[in-house]
Amino acid sequence: MEFDLIEAIRARSATRREDVLLGIGDDAALLRPPPGHALAVAVDTLLEGVHFPLGTAPADIGWKALAVNLSDLAAMGATPAWALLSLSLPRADRRFVEGFLDGFMALAEPHRLALVGGDTTRGTLAVSVTVHGFVHEEQALRRSGAKPGDAIFVTGTLGDAAAGLACLDRQRDDADRLLTSAVDSRKALIERLNRPSPRVAAGQWLREVASACIDVSDGLLADLGHLCKASGVGASLDVDALPLSSALLTLFADNARDFALTGGDDYELCFTAAPEHAARIVADLARQGCGAARIGRIVAEEGVALHDADGRRVTASASGWDHFRT
Amino acid sequence: MEFDLIEAIRARSATRREDVLLGIGDDAALLRPPPGHALAVAVDTLLEGVHFPLGTAPADIGWKALAVNLSDLAAMGATPAWALLSLSLPRADRRFVEGFLDGFMALAEPHRLALVGGDTTRGTLAVSVTVHGFVHEEQALRRSGAKPGDAIFVTGTLGDAAAGLACLDRQRDDADRLLTSAVDSRKALIERLNRPSPRVAAGQWLREVASACIDVSDGLLADLGHLCKASGVGASLDVDALPLSSALLTLFADNARDFALTGGDDYELCFTAAPEHAARIVADLARQGCGAARIGRIVAEEGVALHDADGRRVTASASGWDHFRT
Repeated sequence: MEFDLIEAIRARSATRREDVLLGIGDDAALLRPPPGHALAVAVDTLLEGVHFPLGTAPADIGWKALAVNLSDLAAMGATPAWALLSLSLPRADRRFVEGFLDGFMALAEPHRLALVGGDTTRGTLAVSVTVHGFVHEEQALRRSGAKPGDAIFVTGTLGDAAAGLACLDRQRDDADRLLTSAVDSRKALIERLNRPSPRVAAGQWLREVASACIDVSDGLLADLGHLCKASGVGASLDVDALPLSSALLTLFADNARDFALTGGDDYELCFTAAPEHAARIVADLARQGCGAARIGRIVAEEGVALHDADGRRVTASASGWDHFRT
Repeated sequence: MEFDLIEAIRARSATRREDVLLGIGDDAALLRPPPGHALAVAVDTLLEGVHFPLGTAPADIGWKALAVNLSDLAAMGATPAWALLSLSLPRADRRFVEGFLDGFMALAEPHRLALVGGDTTRGTLAVSVTVHGFVHEEQALRRSGAKPGDAIFVTGTLGDAAAGLACLDRQRDDADRLLTSAVDSRKALIERLNRPSPRVAAGQWLREVASACIDVSDGLLADLGHLCKASGVGASLDVDALPLSSALLTLFADNARDFALTGGDDYELCFTAAPEHAARIVADLARQGCGAARIGRIVAEEGVALHDADGRRVTASASGWDHFRT
């Protein structure tokens, strides 16, 4: 063994929490959940070439592996607490592990998330993270609470990560011919792909006001579809209200809307609330920094229907991203 | 998509527990930990060709993926409660998933373990399971409590799983030439490899009496070494006291002891206790069915030293199994 992977990880798991009785180094972690809270638990696995492109920097992989999981906690309105990491690597590669932990910890620390356990094994590059957070049972944001008449919102901007992936797929020659503004846009989109910002603070704020919530990992149409199905309702979406970044509009003016509707990996929150809360939601989330746009309303009829600002029906070109799409 | 993997898994996650507020189907599971207990959490990932041989039956993979994790809870003295499953498959293969769940649930149900969440993705076959259990904080079995003078014990028998793997590695021709008794032994050893029995009840019983505990996943020498290191002590092992199965002795009379010392994947518990408890431990665990053998004692000097029944020093040929051994 070139070096002790688990020791390297333990040495970096610096976040101290009083509720961690026993962290990395025994058969299991021992944790003390706070009384009166529910425990929110999620796991997501990232595979090279599926969830991040070949050649992604180790620090970006570490960041993203945690971000996609924190996004699940955000969608429940939960406060992050603990994570376990299962890391599969072709070889015990110190440089990779240190870089990975740089990215992982850069996101863990501001959230006071402690890395409390995990395992390492030799195999194709794969990262599986399990996260735990706390939320009062009656305040947890579920997918199933949307009601006809509720307004639909989404945080941040949509489609950027998928556009970032499209930028990476293009030939390098293309990039060289770009104007400076386009170079900056390209960089911004790839940053959104590699370093998504889980909307943890927004999710916690939404506990007071949202009727249902989901994070946008597979694309807005797919994920809003999941929310509607869980709630037994449908949605009417105004495609002209979709929040689009200037970077996306700069590089993909013709198909920005398609990216926003069906692109995966944005990790924004899509949520519903009674329409009387709309002004407060938009104002408060703008103040928080991520922003929120009102993009439609919940209807009784099942399915997600699209219209433009003039009320004309619109058809989407695909319905999101699916790891097992054939 | 050939069929909805997550729906298939949800349909099979039948164990109902009142402390599961929200299971498979939202962004995270919502769970209610019992007041006054610590939460024991462990994750283990199994990869094809590393943790189980190519061609292992799906039901055996499902059983083993849960068993290795329940073994971690057993080693803490914890009572199992919830699991999350992250499943990576080359394609959405219904037959594989149904078989996998047959094995997983066959072990989950007697332990009243609920499958509460997870994810599925397309990639090389890999299974990552996160398990949660409960244990009173002051009763949890740690690796770090062994003291010089403590007796060392191990449950069940050692070396069977590694011998089972050796049986699989041999040519099929060999098997055809075996006597009936040898065929039965071969079957028993392979069963131990594919369907390990996590010592959950023994671990809970040991909360009252053990000073330290670890499960034997990498081999006795390696894992006892971990326990000693965590406790700041050493061990003196009597190799003639190692519990060996008749199947192991039938097929591997010449190197049974090496299998017992260094073979991985047994998932027995190795633990220490004050010597005055020895008779009670051996008697009570025999009554429980798994049995326990006293195999040595903890000493102040670091390292694991071996001797035979006559007190002569013995040298082992290897020091256990390591996923990153180079």
